[in-house]
This record gives sequence, C-alpha cells and structure tokens, in this order.
Amino acid sequence: MIGVSIVNVTSYTGLELLRLLAQHPHFVVRSVTARSAAGKRLAEVFPQFAAAATSNIDPHLLITEEPEQTDLAFVCLPHAAAAEAVLSLLERGTKVIDLSADFRLRDAALYEEWYKHTHPAPALLETAVYGLCERYRGRIEGASLVANPGCYATAAILGLMPALAAGIVGPDIIIDGKSGVSGAGRSLTLGTHFAEANEDVSAYSLLGHRHLPEITQELEAAARASGHPVEGSLRVTFIPHLIPMTRGILATCYADLNVDAAYAVSSTEEVRALYQEYYAHEPFVHVVDSAPHTKWTYGNNNCLVYPMVDTRTGRLLVISCLDNLVKGAAGQAIQNANRLYGFAEATGLTAMPLYP
Amino acid sequence: MIGVSIVNVTSYTGLELLRLLAQHPHFVVRSVTARSAAGKRLAEVFPQFAAAATSNIDPHLLITEEPEQTDLAFVCLPHAAAAEAVLSLLERGTKVIDLSADFRLRDAALYEEWYKHTHPAPALLETAVYGLCERYRGRIEGASLVANPGCYATAAILGLMPALAAGIVGPDIIIDGKSGVSGAGRSLTLGTHFAEANEDVSAYSLLGHRHLPEITQELEAAARASGHPVEGSLRVTFIPHLIPMTRGILATCYADLNVDAAYAVSSTEEVRALYQEYYAHEPFVHVVDSAPHTKWTYGNNNCLVYPMVDTRTGRLLVISCLDNLVKGAAGQAIQNANRLYGFAEATGLTAMPLYP
Amino acid sequence: MIGVSIVNVTSYTGLELLRLLAQHPHFVVRSVTARSAAGKRLAEVFPQFAAAATSNIDPHLLITEEPEQTDLAFVCLPHAAAAEAVLSLLERGTKVIDLSADFRLRDAALYEEWYKHTHPAPALLETAVYGLCERYRGRIEGASLVANPGCYATAAILGLMPALAAGIVGPDIIIDGKSGVSGAGRSLTLGTHFAEANEDVSAYSLLGHRHLPEITQELEAAARASGHPVEGSLRVTFIPHLIPMTRGILATCYADLNVDAAYAVSSTEEVRALYQEYYAHEPFVHVVDSAPHTKWTYGNNNCLVYPMVDTRTGRLLVISCLDNLVKGAAGQAIQNANRLYGFAEATGLTAMPLYP
Amino acid sequence: MIGVSIVNVTSYTGLELLRLLAQHPHFVVRSVTARSAAGKRLAEVFPQFAAAATSNIDPHLLITEEPEQTDLAFVCLPHAAAAEAVLSLLERGTKVIDLSADFRLRDAALYEEWYKHTHPAPALLETAVYGLCERYRGRIEGASLVANPGCYATAAILGLMPALAAGIVGPDIIIDGKSGVSGAGRSLTLGTHFAEANEDVSAYSLLGHRHLPEITQELEAAARASGHPVEGSLRVTFIPHLIPMTRGILATCYADLNVDAAYAVSSTEEVRALYQEYYAHEPFVHVVDSAPHTKWTYGNNNCLVYPMVDTRTGRLLVISCLDNLVKGAAGQAIQNANRLYGFAEATGLTAMPLYP
Repeated sequence: MIGVSIVNVTSYTGLELLRLLAQHPHFVVRSVTARSAAGKRLAEVFPQFAAAATSNIDPHLLITEEPEQTDLAFVCLPHAAAAEAVLSLLERGTKVIDLSADFRLRDAALYEEWYKHTHPAPALLETAVYGLCERYRGRIEGASLVANPGCYATAAILGLMPALAAGIVGPDIIIDGKSGVSGAGRSLTLGTHFAEANEDVSAYSLLGHRHLPEITQELEAAARASGHPVEGSLRVTFIPHLIPMTRGILATCYADLNVDAAYAVSSTEEVRALYQEYYAHEPFVHVVDSAPHTKWTYGNNNCLVYPMVDTRTGRLLVISCLDNLVKGAAGQAIQNANRLYGFAEATGLTAMPLYP
Repeated sequence: MIGVSIVNVTSYTGLELLRLLAQHPHFVVRSVTARSAAGKRLAEVFPQFAAAATSNIDPHLLITEEPEQTDLAFVCLPHAAAAEAVLSLLERGTKVIDLSADFRLRDAALYEEWYKHTHPAPALLETAVYGLCERYRGRIEGASLVANPGCYATAAILGLMPALAAGIVGPDIIIDGKSGVSGAGRSLTLGTHFAEANEDVSAYSLLGHRHLPEITQELEAAARASGHPVEGSLRVTFIPHLIPMTRGILATCYADLNVDAAYAVSSTEEVRALYQEYYAHEPFVHVVDSAPHTKWTYGNNNCLVYPMVDTRTGRLLVISCLDNLVKGAAGQAIQNANRLYGFAEATGLTAMPLYP
Repeated sequence: MIGVSIVNVTSYTGLELLRLLAQHPHFVVRSVTARSAAGKRLAEVFPQFAAAATSNIDPHLLITEEPEQTDLAFVCLPHAAAAEAVLSLLERGTKVIDLSADFRLRDAALYEEWYKHTHPAPALLETAVYGLCERYRGRIEGASLVANPGCYATAAILGLMPALAAGIVGPDIIIDGKSGVSGAGRSLTLGTHFAEANEDVSAYSLLGHRHLPEITQELEAAARASGHPVEGSLRVTFIPHLIPMTRGILATCYADLNVDAAYAVSSTEEVRALYQEYYAHEPFVHVVDSAPHTKWTYGNNNCLVYPMVDTRTGRLLVISCLDNLVKGAAGQAIQNANRLYGFAEATGLTAMPLYP
Repeated sequence: MIGVSIVNVTSYTGLELLRLLAQHPHFVVRSVTARSAAGKRLAEVFPQFAAAATSNIDPHLLITEEPEQTDLAFVCLPHAAAAEAVLSLLERGTKVIDLSADFRLRDAALYEEWYKHTHPAPALLETAVYGLCERYRGRIEGASLVANPGCYATAAILGLMPALAAGIVGPDIIIDGKSGVSGAGRSLTLGTHFAEANEDVSAYSLLGHRHLPEITQELEAAARASGHPVEGSLRVTFIPHLIPMTRGILATCYADLNVDAAYAVSSTEEVRALYQEYYAHEPFVHVVDSAPHTKWTYGNNNCLVYPMVDTRTGRLLVISCLDNLVKGAAGQAIQNANRLYGFAEATGLTAMPLYP
C-alpha cells in the first residue's frame, strides 16, 4: 500500500478523495490536514465516516495542520495557498497531485492576468504536467507534479478536443456550462445559501471565468499537436451557470464546422465516428447515443460526450457531462495517481453512477 | 366584470390563469373545462382553491367538457386540439387568447413541417396576432384571436429583439435555454418523474425545438420592420435544457456584433443604453444591472434582460429570464387580454416575485 | 394610506413583508432599516424590486440604520435586539408588531430559561398581545404591541387548539414538525449551505426548540379558557426537522383521545365536525378533506388543518400546514396589522397559493 | 462466481441491485427480466450502463420475460406478482430473496387484511425468513426464501428493537416517517411528478401504511424473544411523509419510558449505552453521537440510530435513518445474500456515503 496525504481534507474535493480512496486497493490515506479542524479526529468532524470505515480509512485519523511525510499528496487548497504547499511537499520528495489552478496554465503572465497575483512558483510551470490522462498520460507517468484540470475545463476540453484535433471546426467556439452547487465549494456565501440557490438558475463570471484560459490553452495545444493549428487563436466564449442540484456539470459546446476543408465532416454520423475513434480506448470517456444526463455520471468517474451536427446551421454541437467532484476533481486526481504509479487508470474507480 | 372561460383548466397554464385572474379587477372566471375532470367542482380536483377562494374564483365552479358562452376564452389545449376549439369559439363570437402553438407561425407550411400535421385552420393565420405586446400591442387591441407566444420564444425574442432591430448583430445566433420542469406540463412522463428529473440536467429536442421557427420568424420580422433586414436568413441554433426546479426560464443568447456597421456598438455601456431605450416604456421588460436570476421573476410577469459585450471575442451576450408559467404563458395571456380590452397592460399583474 | 416601517428589512421576513405590503390598499412602506445595508437603496440590494415596483413600494427607498417615524413598525430583528428596538419605538408612539420571540412568552422567567438571557423589557410582557387573531383578535384591536407567533407555533397551535378547547384529548402530545430551509433565515450556516441541505432530511433542536414553551403556553391557555383545563400540565414533545425545500411547514400532531370523557369523540367525522365549527368563520384557517400539502399554501396566508382519528390506537392525528414566511411570519403580521387598524383581516392577503 | 438473476430489473430496486452487484466479488448477474423491456439489451434501456460496465455487469445482457436458471434470484416485482414468481423459482431450485411484501407477514389473514387479496402461497410463509440480519442471521443462513424487509420497516425496527428487547418502553409508540420520492418507485403518478413533489411535503397513507403490520410483528417478536413481552399488543401509529429528495428515509420514533420497571433507564447516557451494546457487533447499524442526517447514508448500506431521552416528558426518542434503496432494499438484499452463502455480511457493501 502506498501512503498518501490529503491536504485540506475538509474541502469537498478533499472529502471526495477520502470517499473514493476508501475503495482503492493500493493507496491508503495516512495523513489529512485542515487548518480549521486541526487537532480533531476525522469522525468528530464527519460523523458519517465513523459509520462507514473501511480498512483504507481510519475514522480516528488525526487532522493536522501540516501533512505527514507520505509518498504522494493530493493538495486541495485554494490557488496561491496551493502553490506554497506544493513547493514544500516537492522539496520533501513527495509527489503531488494539485487540485488547484496553480499549475494548470503554462504561462505565468496569463496566470497573473486571471488570478490577479504573481505566480508563487513559476519555475515549476515547466515541470508540471496538465493532468488530463486522455492527452498527457505518457508525461504523467514520470511526473512529480500533476496539475489536475478544472471541472468545467475537463468537460469542455473532452467535449471539443477531438474536433480541434481533427481540424473540423473553425476558431469560433461557445461553451455554455451548467454546474451543480458543490462546484462552488464548502465555503459559505449568500449565492450558495439553500434558500437562494434552490429554485433558481443564473449565469455568473460573465467577465470571464478562470477556466477559460485553461480551456483555450488545451484546445489550441490539441489542434497544434495534431497538425491542425488554429489560425490566429481560438475565440472562446464560456458562460457558466449555477444549477439547483448538488453535483454534475454539463457543457453545451457550439462551433462552426469547417465545411470547406478537405477533412470536413457534415453529418452527425461522421462526427460520431470521428469521436468514437478518438476515444476508443479511453476507460472513462464515452461517446453516447443520445443526449447525456449529468445523473448518468452521478458519483462516478465517467465523462459522457455526445457530438452532433446541427444541419440547419452547419454547426457542431457537443454535449459533454461529468460529476464535478469525480471526473471534474477527485476521481480524475486518482486516475492521475494510478497513472503516476503505473496502475491501470480505472483502479478503484469502477463504481457505477448512483441512479436514481 | 367581463366573464372569461378557461379551456383545459387542469393544465398548468390553465391553473396559473386561475391564480392570476383571482386578483384581476375586471375579469371573472365563469367557465372552466377539462375532459378528464368534467362533472367535478374545481375544489374537488384542486383542494387548495377551496381554501383560497376570492370573489373572482368560485371553488364550486363546475368543470365542464365544453365552455359556456363568455366574452373571452383562454385556450390551454395542446396544439391541433387547440385550433379546433378556437374555431368553434370564434364562430360563437368569443374572443380567444390561444396559449397553444397553433396560431403563432404565419406560414402553414412551416407549421406542418414542425408540428407534423396539416394546419387545422390556415385561414385564421392571417387574422391571428402574435401576442407579444412589446411588439404588436397596436394590433392586439382590435384582435379577435391572439396567439400567445411560447415560453422560450418570449425569453429569446425579448432578449434579442433590440439587437436585431438596431442591426448591431449578424445572422449567427445561438440560444442556450434552461427551463424548470413545469414547462413540460402536467402530463406524466419518465423524464419529469421526480426521481429522474431531480439532481439532473440534460439537453433535449436536439434536432430542433418547436419554439425555434417562432423565434426566427419574430426576430427576422423585427429586423425587417426597423429597416435592418437580415441578409439571407438568421442562422439560429436553440438548445433547451431541463433544470431541476419547478419554474423559471433563462435564455443565454450569443451573437456576433456587426463591428463594421455604421450603427455598430462595441461596449457593454452602449448596448445597455440601446436596450434601455428600447424598453424604456415597457411595464414588464426590465434591463437589469447584473446577471439576472430566474428567482427574481418567480411568480410574476417580468422579463429581465441583461445585455453585455464579451470584449475578448466581440460577441453580444444577452441573458434573459422570466417565469415560464407567467410571462411565458398565463401572465402574458392576461397582459394580452388587458390590451384587448383597453385596460392598462399591468392590470392585475403587479405582484412582486416570491423571494426566497 | 398608513405609513409603516420595516425594521431589518434584509431578513427573509422583512423581505416578505415588502412583497405582501406591495399589494396592500392601506399600508405604504415609508421606512426600511438594516444595519448591513444602511445607506443603500432597496433596489441596489435587491435588484428584483427595481423590476417589480408598485405604487406601494419605492425601489429607491433609502435603507437606514434607524427607522423613520411612522404610525406602525414591523420589527424583524433577532430576539433581544428586537426588544430594544420595540422599547424605543413604543416610546415614540409607534405601534409595533414584533416578529421576534421577545414578547410571546408571558413569563419572564420562562423566557430567560429558553433564551438564556434576562428579558430586556419584562414590564411590556403584560401589555403585549400574542398575535394569533384566531384567538386574541379582540385584544389585538386596541393593542400597541403585538407579539407575532412563531412559525412552528402557529402551525401546531392552530392544529391542536380546537381539540384542547373541546377537552377531547389528554395531556400527552407529540408534534413532529417539518420546515423548509427559509425558516432558518438569511444568515449563512453550514447546515443551510445548499450542498449540505439539499437531498437531506434531519431532526434538530432535540433538547428543546424555542417554540415549545410558546406552544405549551397557548394550548394550556386555550384549554383553560374553554373550561377544560389540563390537569397538571401538558407533556408536549416537539421535534422539528429540516426539509430540502425553500418554504413550508407541516406539523404532524399526535394526542391520545379522552375516550371516557362525556364530550368524547371517537371518529374522524366527529372530530372534523368539531374543527369545522371551531374555524367556521376564520378567513385563513381551513379544515380540509384530505391530507394537506405545504404547496397548497405556497406564498399565501392560509393554514390548512386536517384532523382525523387513528381508530386502531384511539389517537387524534392532526396535520396542519402553512407557509412559514406568510402565515408563519409576514402574512400573519399583516393580518394582525389589519386587525389593529380595524380593516378586514384578509385585506391585502387574498392571493392564491403558487401552484405548481 | 455465483450467478444471480434480477427479476424486474427496471424497477428502482432492481437497478440498485445492478449498481451494487457490479462491485461484488462473488455474485455475477447472469439474467435480468422486465416485461416492458424484454428483448432489449440493458444498455439500450439504461445508457449509463454502457459507460459504466464492470466485469460483473454486461451492458449487452439481454432483458428477458422470464429469468434464466441461476443459483439465486432477487425478485423486485410488486406484491402478488412477486409471490407467483417466487413459487416458480423455488420449484426450479433457485434460492430467492424477495424484495416485495409477500412473505414478510407470518399471518396470511393479516396479509389479506392489508393487501386486499388472498395470499398466493400461504404455505411458504412458514419457511420464509424475515431478512433482517440484525435479528435472524442464524435462520437466514440456511434459508431458501428470504423476505427482504420494507424500507420504512427497516428504519423503524432497527430504531426501536433494542428498546423493546430491553423492555424499557411501554406499548404506545409513534413513528413519524420521512421518505425521499424514489421510495414510491419508478411508476408514474401525479404525486411523484416533479412539479408536484418538488417544494412540497405531505403525509400519506393516513389510514394505515402497509409497513405498519410488519413493524408491529417484528417489534412484538423482539420483545417476546428477549423475555419482555408486550402486554396486550403494541399500539403503533405510523405516519409516512413524502420529502422532496430522491433518496433517504428518516424515522422519528416516540415511546413512553417504563419509568417504574426494574430495568428502567432514565437518561440519554443509559439508553445510548444500551443501544451501543445491542448493536456492538453489527457491520451496518451504528449508534451515532448526534442527530443523524439521511445524507450520511446516501448510497451506502448503513442504518444510523440516535436514541435519547426527552427528560421533560419521560419519553424515549429515537431517530433512525438509512438510504431507502440500499439498507432499505437492494443493499439489505445483498447483505442477506452474503449471509445465505456464508460470506461476510459486508462483502461488496463497504462504500462510503456520497457526500455532499
């Protein structure tokens, strides 16, 4: 068994790591941290763990301020704080999967523009690997620092990457995202107060959501890597919406088909075939036969992708969905950890979705 | 008091008419019909009415198969069935506000394409007025048949009409709609079964939702009427989504700004000014200062519109929301009825939204 | 028009007063206070008001720290803070309807036991009237201070009062309460964070909810007043539960029937007849024919009561429900204000429930 | 691997069996039936399975009308239909775990009284074992037919059994149940239509819910078995309520403490100690330290029990909760199957709850 730490275990992503790792055959949680709960036992803060202990999770584990020495650490801190923790963990020789945004963007200037402060560890941006196994699994294997993708970014990139890689769409892209409220985290805000968020839908981050540069970076890179670089750059509009449910992200993606290109596709059949081939060997990305429901991924690590052509307008539509806390966070982090240690990527991640 | 009928009162729109008319100073409900409940009293089928009777609504009103003779009828039947009822009502000399889709499209062939059967009363398409007061109030005043707009169509048209009328956007338009489950009506389906719809979001009608031709028709007409006709025709993609809440529609609209046109706008300030002027005298359409929430219209007749420019991409974004059962159905129908009879449009419709 | 103030308008009960008063023919809101929002205009803090202005509510009304001089004030502060505000308002000659718990208990010692601090104005307990029109309307008419009942207390008292008044039940009473989350107010807590409260039900206040002494006081008083005093005292257990919905309270009440008493009832028919007679002239309390749904009172001022006999066990069951923000708070406060000024109690409160 | 059938796999309990068995090390699903979906493959009807296949569940499994021959069958049919299927399976030599109510009551007359038809196989009532491992695990081991307990019944019995077994409470018991909507199954009804059930709570089955005789039978049996038989018989009132959430049952139980008995307990500490001892070795029943939330069991097989003394009234209160589809149905069925085959009861059932 490989010992792991969870830094900031009281976050929703930290707790989801606990839930998923409880079923993992090779990782065991040896250290958990949380500033606000330091000095308490896991089961004091989360009574449900006392009742659901497995051999992998000790409900009496002491929550500490700083992580114990373990082979691997999952960092669930907010950005900036995360980078500092990562630095110190790497110095100790601990491998790190960082669930924050700190090492996702390759360009420190872009980070500063979007996160409004100087990057705390720009030197690490070179070595950090963007933890999307579907694209970088080869590089993840030997990495010491994996930057786990954002939840919206995972849905959008997996939804659009095959089209960009195939060069079948132009640079104009619109991504309309819908997320359950757990995506906003466990910190209290008026917008996530039950009586405010319930029976309501609204758009937010209209001036630009922080997952936008991450999406653009990866879609452009996918296009370049496959020999279909975007002329100029992508023009992506991404508008996220808050949905009155706990879990789930659905991204509805719109792009103009390159109807004149040699490699053009013009029918849903063609685009489906292209997507199916692209994801043929993926354990978690599945091209589905009808518009997917977020509920079909409730609690599991799948990303369901449904591409089609809107023949009236010559547009590609892709609907892509996942559980924001699993494939959008903790599950993808474990998928990365599996890859890091050479385990099959699906190890410990085979649960079916909770339905209904 | 003007006597009115509600045809198919057991639909959600029929029931919402009852709720709203209960507060109206000039209309009184004299006749209600419903095939499935004929022979029963209102309060037998809807116990909440017994307890909430007003002088306008008699809980002992008998539900009949056919409407009694009244001056005005609201028809809440499904399409096709609606047209037949409308014909018979008009023959009796009853004025009709039809909440179905039967008289919204001016072109019988288009109707046949989208509704998959021959129009039952094509001759009436000429005289029917599209019941969007914000555009046709002059024609509604003398009408005998008003076609009440669809819920999504109302949100989308009110969100985009000022831009089309001003000629500031090109023909490429994407409308991403989100609707509460009551929009699907009171008929039982697996998709609206609580355990299926709860904690879920999904797209539907991907091959084309029936509100699409209505949206296109009205946006093109608005552009033509104001001297900025669309070249060729609009290319609108409209994808609706089901949201786990009872009421509310939010339309997120994306369009390319005509940056080269003489009348171009390029900033949020300019586009807001344009919208504010357009809707300056409207009682129910309000240009708001921040991204609106469907909850801000819960139970009332407002449509809130928030236009902005995505300066990164030169796109116009408009977020528009309303209560699908009020401004998207019964409230708008009463607004039309007010206009029909020369009452102030807001008569009986001044309720604030339910919050929280 | 009678000018009124709302003290602490940013609470959910304060906002609900605004919504309801917007339709009132005799009261006009002239002053609103809120410490956290002082200096802003109503519509800055609540954009939905800008769009839903009526002649009764001015969206540009300035929120102040202290109320202006008005004839009547509704106080929506937490307990203790409320008493201080009430004292100062009464000194100015303002009539007060206090929505806090400060003047509901007649016994200052009991208040101290349950609220854990000395009563700030015990002298006023004599003159304050418990604002349950169904019992004290005569005394409310001339009052200067009305203590608006608690939400659970209203549901429980209205559900059980006829039985206690008729002496048909013994002293053993169990009240199992279920409340929507808005009952917990607008202050942020982990328990009312969307992702925590959604898809969950739990009991709380197991060591005694503060509405318990209020319920006991009023049920005992009703029994005494009608000549059927309880021997010793009532033994009431009241357990409230948090339900994942925004509005609504349902109280399920259990009591042993006094089968041997001269005035015993033993069938549902008898107990229903007794309740119907008791509430025959009430505008807002309705004895319904089947188990009521909280949705049947969504947004309106009704309390629905359903009494029955569990013949297997000889128990009286009463199910009683209402909207916690309307009949359980703001609506009842306006009903009291109507009574205070000699208006019909239902003035401005005739809205039907929002359905669905 | 032991081959199993799921009869009526398209029910929510059938689907939950699939989800849970997908992780089981010893059972493999070889046959699934459903009248309405016969002739289709699992993944055609439930697209989420195509994407979440494990080695235990074949998404291409053909749904048939009649089960194939397997060693064990789980029967998820409605009552009456279940008994007939059970008879035929037993005749073939298949062991059966019946999730319907057909073999829960030992008395055929009682069955007829509550289910309104003659028992289809009264002879089997003798040999059927009530599948509550916490009480009958010894008998389950060798059984051929296990009657899986009802969801409410499981929560109520596990909540009250220690008190009855210890003789600390009298015969007067009140059980107030709250259930998520999935408990009503997958059949469409107006009451489970999203727009009706959402934002609503109501009581149902007021004349007697069918889990009541099951609860009474088992609580009386537990009392007898431990030498504290109830004088006369228990007087149980059980009122269930529908809660706007998908999963979860919470039972709030009220009983009078036998204060005079030699074995009386009078404090929460004593009653907690008694419960903790009673459930000390149970893998799935946990006595918790604070009022439990249904969410603490979301998707897993635990039943959380919280007993306390209401010292004001001398009553025992027990709050007990579980996931109606897991410990209340499919999870408990697998626990029984594990016991039947001599596997550790928790085999394949160790998942932590989904949180949040």
